[in-house]
Amino acid sequence: MKQIAFYGKGGIGKSTTVCNIAAALADQGKKVMVVGCDPKHDCTSNLRGGQEIPTVLDILREKGLDKLGLETIIEKEMIEINDIIYEGYNGIYCVEAGGPKPGYGCAGRGVIVVIDLLKKMNLYKDLKLDIVLYDVLGDVVCGGFAMPLRMGLAEQIYVVTSSDYMAIYAANNICRGISEFVKRGGSKLGGLIYNVRGSMDAYDIINEFADKLGANIVGKVPNSHLIPEAEIEGKTVIEYDPNDEISQVYRELAKKIYENNEGTIPKPLENIEIMTIGKKIKERLKKERMKN
Amino acid sequence: MKQIAFYGKGGIGKSTTVCNIAAALADQGKKVMVVGCDPKHDCTSNLRGGQEIPTVLDILREKGLDKLGLETIIEKEMIEINDIIYEGYNGIYCVEAGGPKPGYGCAGRGVIVVIDLLKKMNLYKDLKLDIVLYDVLGDVVCGGFAMPLRMGLAEQIYVVTSSDYMAIYAANNICRGISEFVKRGGSKLGGLIYNVRGSMDAYDIINEFADKLGANIVGKVPNSHLIPEAEIEGKTVIEYDPNDEISQVYRELAKKIYENNEGTIPKPLENIEIMTIGKKIKERLKKERMKN
Repeated sequence: MKQIAFYGKGGIGKSTTVCNIAAALADQGKKVMVVGCDPKHDCTSNLRGGQEIPTVLDILREKGLDKLGLETIIEKEMIEINDIIYEGYNGIYCVEAGGPKPGYGCAGRGVIVVIDLLKKMNLYKDLKLDIVLYDVLGDVVCGGFAMPLRMGLAEQIYVVTSSDYMAIYAANNICRGISEFVKRGGSKLGGLIYNVRGSMDAYDIINEFADKLGANIVGKVPNSHLIPEAEIEGKTVIEYDPNDEISQVYRELAKKIYENNEGTIPKPLENIEIMTIGKKIKERLKKERMKN
Repeated sequence: MKQIAFYGKGGIGKSTTVCNIAAALADQGKKVMVVGCDPKHDCTSNLRGGQEIPTVLDILREKGLDKLGLETIIEKEMIEINDIIYEGYNGIYCVEAGGPKPGYGCAGRGVIVVIDLLKKMNLYKDLKLDIVLYDVLGDVVCGGFAMPLRMGLAEQIYVVTSSDYMAIYAANNICRGISEFVKRGGSKLGGLIYNVRGSMDAYDIINEFADKLGANIVGKVPNSHLIPEAEIEGKTVIEYDPNDEISQVYRELAKKIYENNEGTIPKPLENIEIMTIGKKIKERLKKERMKN
């Protein structure tokens, strides 16, 4: 079984990417699980017709189990596989970690709990999975959110970024985390996925960023009106319009990621370097505006 | 002295709003402090010609003080006011809380430390401040980031949102936090600030959201090409082009916020309601695209 974690700033198309990759792999007959590790808990909703699923943290709270140890919960069979795993498009297993009550506790606790629970319930093995995809919020790389990369749980980390400065900033921060943890057995970077958003395609700037990081851009997902259209219906484009070229882009990306067994250790950019990239983006945006 | 906290998702113009309000108040002769509570630590850079300042957490780490208690640090005068407070536009005091090392510890620890430190160093009083503005990341409202609202430290909370679904989702989550903590003396909501981003102005949708929340929209900041232009030079529009109408918008907003002594208890939307708003936004985006 292969485990892959996708990190990236919230709102830049990370879940879209993960769901489409999952759908592409499921279409190829792979047994896939998607674990949503974003307190917004809608990572998997485009695999389920837009329907959200209860989160692991919510279920534990509702059942009054949130104060118990996971060992006790599992030993006494207080939770069942159907409580936390929901089937999505083409048999994909969907799990949502969930977040803390707003304002209380650690934002990343859901990630820690869900990974521990899946392992202790032996679900990774029992379900005979080919691949598990973790969809992890990267805005704030606190201890909790770093979990999948820290222990080397994932074989590779992929970082999704748009050409938005905040997205690049978050991507760089995630790479700083990777480069720290890799010294103690953490996961390596599989590469960057460039998700074009809006009208501006700044591939050259992302390429410069990747070069400085010492990272590959494993794929570029062009802006497509089909993506939001499919998502209004709670679908991936793979499901919504499998013959469109954007679906082909995702299939190729999925294949690359599934077959890749390599990883690199990124060299995170210094503050001054990342700010220089920020300036370039702002200037590019200004130029684009002038054109229109 | 008045204390106000601004919450909102990262990347939707929260720091732009806070810096411009600070600049407007400073121009009116007020003694203003801006406390950046975002691990990205560039909240105040547009008050300082684009120059970032060292964060409180970084300074404590560099001086090897991060393992000591704040009492000891202050008692032994191991840290000075000039180490953590930097002057910006028109005498505005700038402080950046900073974040943890990526992947380690709590994302919101900087907020907890900086507030405690400023209080214990007696800086709020010694500097004879009229107003302190906290600029707080709201993507993930964990315990740390909730600090300024939890203890009722801020007199009012303002939530900045664009019409981006993720921004509204975060705004709703922040309001859920407010409504929880208000029962135990937490801060009330001063209102929403609608920051128009991109080409779509969905005031009606934000208005519907505000209505359901039971909140006021205290201001709407229109999209202006001057804002990114000013920020390439590390300036607020108040500084860059004080006579432009966008500067007037900020001055009016600043006045309203400074003079407001009221707050409401928001009624956060249920998941199903917030998803309905999400669908409306997606459909509006689709319609806008069709038009172009």
